[in-house]
Amino acid sequence: MPAPKKQLSIAMIGSGSIARAHSNAFHQVGRFFDLSWALEPKVVCGRDPVKLEKFAAQWGWSEHSLDWQAVVRRRDIDIVDIAVPNALHAPVALRALEAGKIVFCEKPLAANLADARDMAAAAARSKIPNLVWFNYRRAPAVVLARQLIEEGRLGEIYHYRAYYFNQSGIDPRKGQTWRYRLAEAGSGVMGDLLSHSLETAVYLNGKLAELSAMTHTFIPGREVDDAVLVMAKFAHGGLGSFEASRFGVGRTNGYGFEMYGSKGSLAFDQEEMNRLRFFDASEPGPTQAYRDMLVTGPGHPYSSNFWKPGHLIGYEHTFISTLGDFLACLTTGEPFHPDFSDAAEIEALLEAVKASAASRQWTRISI
Amino acid sequence: MPAPKKQLSIAMIGSGSIARAHSNAFHQVGRFFDLSWALEPKVVCGRDPVKLEKFAAQWGWSEHSLDWQAVVRRRDIDIVDIAVPNALHAPVALRALEAGKIVFCEKPLAANLADARDMAAAAARSKIPNLVWFNYRRAPAVVLARQLIEEGRLGEIYHYRAYYFNQSGIDPRKGQTWRYRLAEAGSGVMGDLLSHSLETAVYLNGKLAELSAMTHTFIPGREVDDAVLVMAKFAHGGLGSFEASRFGVGRTNGYGFEMYGSKGSLAFDQEEMNRLRFFDASEPGPTQAYRDMLVTGPGHPYSSNFWKPGHLIGYEHTFISTLGDFLACLTTGEPFHPDFSDAAEIEALLEAVKASAASRQWTRISI
Amino acid sequence: MPAPKKQLSIAMIGSGSIARAHSNAFHQVGRFFDLSWALEPKVVCGRDPVKLEKFAAQWGWSEHSLDWQAVVRRRDIDIVDIAVPNALHAPVALRALEAGKIVFCEKPLAANLADARDMAAAAARSKIPNLVWFNYRRAPAVVLARQLIEEGRLGEIYHYRAYYFNQSGIDPRKGQTWRYRLAEAGSGVMGDLLSHSLETAVYLNGKLAELSAMTHTFIPGREVDDAVLVMAKFAHGGLGSFEASRFGVGRTNGYGFEMYGSKGSLAFDQEEMNRLRFFDASEPGPTQAYRDMLVTGPGHPYSSNFWKPGHLIGYEHTFISTLGDFLACLTTGEPFHPDFSDAAEIEALLEAVKASAASRQWTRISI
Amino acid sequence: MPAPKKQLSIAMIGSGSIARAHSNAFHQVGRFFDLSWALEPKVVCGRDPVKLEKFAAQWGWSEHSLDWQAVVRRRDIDIVDIAVPNALHAPVALRALEAGKIVFCEKPLAANLADARDMAAAAARSKIPNLVWFNYRRAPAVVLARQLIEEGRLGEIYHYRAYYFNQSGIDPRKGQTWRYRLAEAGSGVMGDLLSHSLETAVYLNGKLAELSAMTHTFIPGREVDDAVLVMAKFAHGGLGSFEASRFGVGRTNGYGFEMYGSKGSLAFDQEEMNRLRFFDASEPGPTQAYRDMLVTGPGHPYSSNFWKPGHLIGYEHTFISTLGDFLACLTTGEPFHPDFSDAAEIEALLEAVKASAASRQWTRISI
Repeated sequence: MPAPKKQLSIAMIGSGSIARAHSNAFHQVGRFFDLSWALEPKVVCGRDPVKLEKFAAQWGWSEHSLDWQAVVRRRDIDIVDIAVPNALHAPVALRALEAGKIVFCEKPLAANLADARDMAAAAARSKIPNLVWFNYRRAPAVVLARQLIEEGRLGEIYHYRAYYFNQSGIDPRKGQTWRYRLAEAGSGVMGDLLSHSLETAVYLNGKLAELSAMTHTFIPGREVDDAVLVMAKFAHGGLGSFEASRFGVGRTNGYGFEMYGSKGSLAFDQEEMNRLRFFDASEPGPTQAYRDMLVTGPGHPYSSNFWKPGHLIGYEHTFISTLGDFLACLTTGEPFHPDFSDAAEIEALLEAVKASAASRQWTRISI
Repeated sequence: MPAPKKQLSIAMIGSGSIARAHSNAFHQVGRFFDLSWALEPKVVCGRDPVKLEKFAAQWGWSEHSLDWQAVVRRRDIDIVDIAVPNALHAPVALRALEAGKIVFCEKPLAANLADARDMAAAAARSKIPNLVWFNYRRAPAVVLARQLIEEGRLGEIYHYRAYYFNQSGIDPRKGQTWRYRLAEAGSGVMGDLLSHSLETAVYLNGKLAELSAMTHTFIPGREVDDAVLVMAKFAHGGLGSFEASRFGVGRTNGYGFEMYGSKGSLAFDQEEMNRLRFFDASEPGPTQAYRDMLVTGPGHPYSSNFWKPGHLIGYEHTFISTLGDFLACLTTGEPFHPDFSDAAEIEALLEAVKASAASRQWTRISI
Repeated sequence: MPAPKKQLSIAMIGSGSIARAHSNAFHQVGRFFDLSWALEPKVVCGRDPVKLEKFAAQWGWSEHSLDWQAVVRRRDIDIVDIAVPNALHAPVALRALEAGKIVFCEKPLAANLADARDMAAAAARSKIPNLVWFNYRRAPAVVLARQLIEEGRLGEIYHYRAYYFNQSGIDPRKGQTWRYRLAEAGSGVMGDLLSHSLETAVYLNGKLAELSAMTHTFIPGREVDDAVLVMAKFAHGGLGSFEASRFGVGRTNGYGFEMYGSKGSLAFDQEEMNRLRFFDASEPGPTQAYRDMLVTGPGHPYSSNFWKPGHLIGYEHTFISTLGDFLACLTTGEPFHPDFSDAAEIEALLEAVKASAASRQWTRISI
Repeated sequence: MPAPKKQLSIAMIGSGSIARAHSNAFHQVGRFFDLSWALEPKVVCGRDPVKLEKFAAQWGWSEHSLDWQAVVRRRDIDIVDIAVPNALHAPVALRALEAGKIVFCEKPLAANLADARDMAAAAARSKIPNLVWFNYRRAPAVVLARQLIEEGRLGEIYHYRAYYFNQSGIDPRKGQTWRYRLAEAGSGVMGDLLSHSLETAVYLNGKLAELSAMTHTFIPGREVDDAVLVMAKFAHGGLGSFEASRFGVGRTNGYGFEMYGSKGSLAFDQEEMNRLRFFDASEPGPTQAYRDMLVTGPGHPYSSNFWKPGHLIGYEHTFISTLGDFLACLTTGEPFHPDFSDAAEIEALLEAVKASAASRQWTRISI
């Protein structure tokens, strides 16, 4: 008979669209991952009692509350999960860390670098594991990319090209949502989209050494950036380019990258999330070509957790795998990434991007 | 305050790989569909007590039992879900129908036409709604295909081409699993793969009028068919071709179709499940082309149930949507398809395929 | 100083659209292939003097004539090239062979099997090399497919699936062109499209052993078949399926094939003519995948003849390479394929297709 | 009887690989374009008499000469075509313009901006039409892109993203060819690849307003840039990004662009040269999607010149169409683009790229 699982009770602060994905992961992780923990989604906090009740019922939260400050201190809560607008990440996280909770935080870590550093420092002091929901690095194809890089199959890296295009910004009325208010979001496309691209870039390449950036806002009066372009060099000597925009008409979640190395190349696009393209320059002769890998097993990352080869997984599974890995680390004591410290480094990169773009000359900045 | 949901308790017979997908749907349907029912996965039945206990724990079944015959008669069970080898579908279903249960059955409906007809007749007599898990017709792209056809955007249909290739059969040891034993499976690739293709074909085209078929077994001594080819005419006057094989090396779940009509054409492949290609011949001039539709919304089938546009869904969601639609019908009283009666017609087609292939001349057979 | 090239003077019978492709090849072959022959496009024959004069001027023919019978006997003509409707292939070819000419013939070889056999027999008696313009087997990707098969990289062949779809038949007025008149064309889609598919199939697989077929004519009163389906077995034991139609709305020259073997698989589509997809089942581990090969070199068939890697070639180059190979054989004395004898075997297959389709039962026919 | 064609005799200076593409165009243009000119490839000039003789014979030049300075003054020469290393463009062009010839020049126009301006000024003074071989803007898909933009189907342009990747630079020995010697080439990837991207960008967008750039050389000691990145704004207000590299392992001629506008988007990649992807945001409802246009007719640019719909063209046809358009302009007197003046503007952009990259801060430069 297996040992009984230790229970972890969760309070989630926030009940918007990303809170659906978090909730789903809390319920599903135990189906697909062999854990020594049993998660209990206990309390969800929000501001609108009617919507909140409906949300709690639909997503299986035992309780709901309008008072997150009380909830994060409750002794029967083990994990506080943050799914609120960016500017509120810091106050919630700091309070929860103070209360000794495991904290999960939606990306980007904060609305600005100062908050991010405070959060990372507090998290470090607490010595309690924590997690930031940069979910895309857990797409099986992205993990496979990392494996191939670690095995040396790309050789020396020459180019990394990242893009993230959606079309969410073209509606001028979007200015009325929090994502378009500077005080709440901290930035526009930078925190929303570019942060994902940077996080994956660092995951696959290690640190950036220097960058230059420009930003643009297409809608007059809008407070935040609609688009950002970055040219960079990595510490490994290769070049990086980053482009993110909410004006990529036709792309709904067009996040991807290309990577060119001396021994091979890779390409990934989230709209074909179950695939990774890999060019192996060591392959002899006329069959040398991009391989169009369907990353659903056998032998692929997370493929034994989910369905049989050829049977696709989707967006939600990147959250489930993030959580599965975190809980495995919680058991073994190994460090989990990305945590607050990792995410604070991404905030530092965003800060450099902002500084360069703000200089009249899109000046190069060393990191 | 919403009306309390009526609870439906489920007994699932079977705990193999397809039982995972069923279990998942039972848990997940209420997250994504607004239902007047609350499902309770109560008892799972199997033969190996150790594995069964583990399965029950992982997939959230309150109880497990080795005695399906007792379970299907329990008064606290509302739904019996069948996830066992084909030849056992009939005995379980007939017993469950006798006991007045709602019955869900994995496809194909039965191991042979006689059983299928018995099951359909018993189901009809029971007047209780039932369901057969032909999940692929609930892929959003397939439902969109049907919508476009119903709107007349394909015009008169000239050609329907279906294929289903995987590589599961190349391992000679596969003869040791039930899928390769004639008595348990009823057929090889016909019931396993071709049945899906036929079901979708009928969903999109209506009835077949005549067909001719050949089958082949590549592994000497194997009891079942490894591959099948069918030429057909539909009642609508268009031509059909079907090809299914477990020897499609390189394809892991390569189910798809092409459809050519006077006003437009379609193409779908399950390995790109979130996409549908549509050629609109009424589009004027030089931009007439295949459209590569990412069927994740807005406005696409099931897109409001799941995630935001551009965020993919996977294999499991076809089961969730099947179940969501069934439960909506259960509320409204509308008929759900495909039910046992629909699935028995697919068995009749399989029977015609077998008969033609068995004739020395691959003789044309009217249906 | 190189030896002076021997001159071969050409008479082309026909000045329609395919005659453009032939003319182009006559002019271009010497640019891309290192030949011991210099081709001289001397006389083009046709029926409309005004159009013919214009054609001759545009396509570089020194003379034009309305009297093909006189022309094919001229002593200053070495090669007679046939680019007229199918039913005229036999009379022109027989006369030209009688006159001791090298004969090139557009595919299909003839309008019926009897003619084809007469032509093949006359060609054999003449002992003079000859050529049939089944140009698609010279697409670099198709030649590469053959090389991979010959190297054993596909292993035992399980499935070969061929298709050829265009949309040329949907216009009812097409009945007014020769391709829709039985007496001139001999058949519809069978000779026009299926013949290409069968020729490539035999090139890649060797002989067919048996087949069953159905045909259909969608336009009432049309004399020829609009669509054909074939199920087959090859002598090598694998299965074949063939589908060809002029009602493939959305496809303009949709000729392609898939091939599945024990060690690997292939896919080709003429609308992506510079590409071949290859799955290598011997590739270890998680990078096993379809390779999307851009067949433009280095090391690919004909890549040293044309442009640098990554620089595409098109339709016309398949004719140029056919001719280049023929002229190389003419120098070395090696046999060239496909010749009249090869093409007569394709006619025999078409005859079997017709016979099976004409039987009420789409009866299986051994070949 | 048509008017006799006026003959234009050509002298080509250079006999390397690009001279093959030029020669081919001279022979082929009259086959596919209805011209009032007959081109005569008369003299080819080079340095190695043995290779030159062979080249002349293979590519149909009546004469060959080692003395280009004498040839460009010959009275029987009408057109001087320049196919030599970049640094020699200016001396040949200036001499040919002085002699009153029509001058065609391979891209980039010159090895530096000063030369380019001299050439453009001399060309302007001569009042004789001239041409620069930026062939890719004549790919049918690129011309179709321009047509869609001109019709307003993209609306306001937000983003233009260009890339040009090949893998030609990874071989360290490449430093021995002229393309890697600064004195002969003027630059590395900037003149070789980026110039194409900039030219197409201006063709599709109009002028750039400002840019910032970085370059990199991966091989120590190599004189020229291996890679370049550019961030830019166009005068139309949209953003531009450019990336070009000879270290794009896996890409052999990976030139392409994406373009996002308020009403639609486009994507093109030269390795799929016969295709253009177009997203029409005005398309209502669920069939809104990228269209995968096979730009081979009917109704597509140049489709009536070449083969039937669905029959691909290749690299060489972009040269043929460039020449066909030039000769049509020569007849009508309409200006042809791109000419020396247009190409000198591309040189000015390259100069700005160099200046920004050379500044320690990758400084933004207004144009």
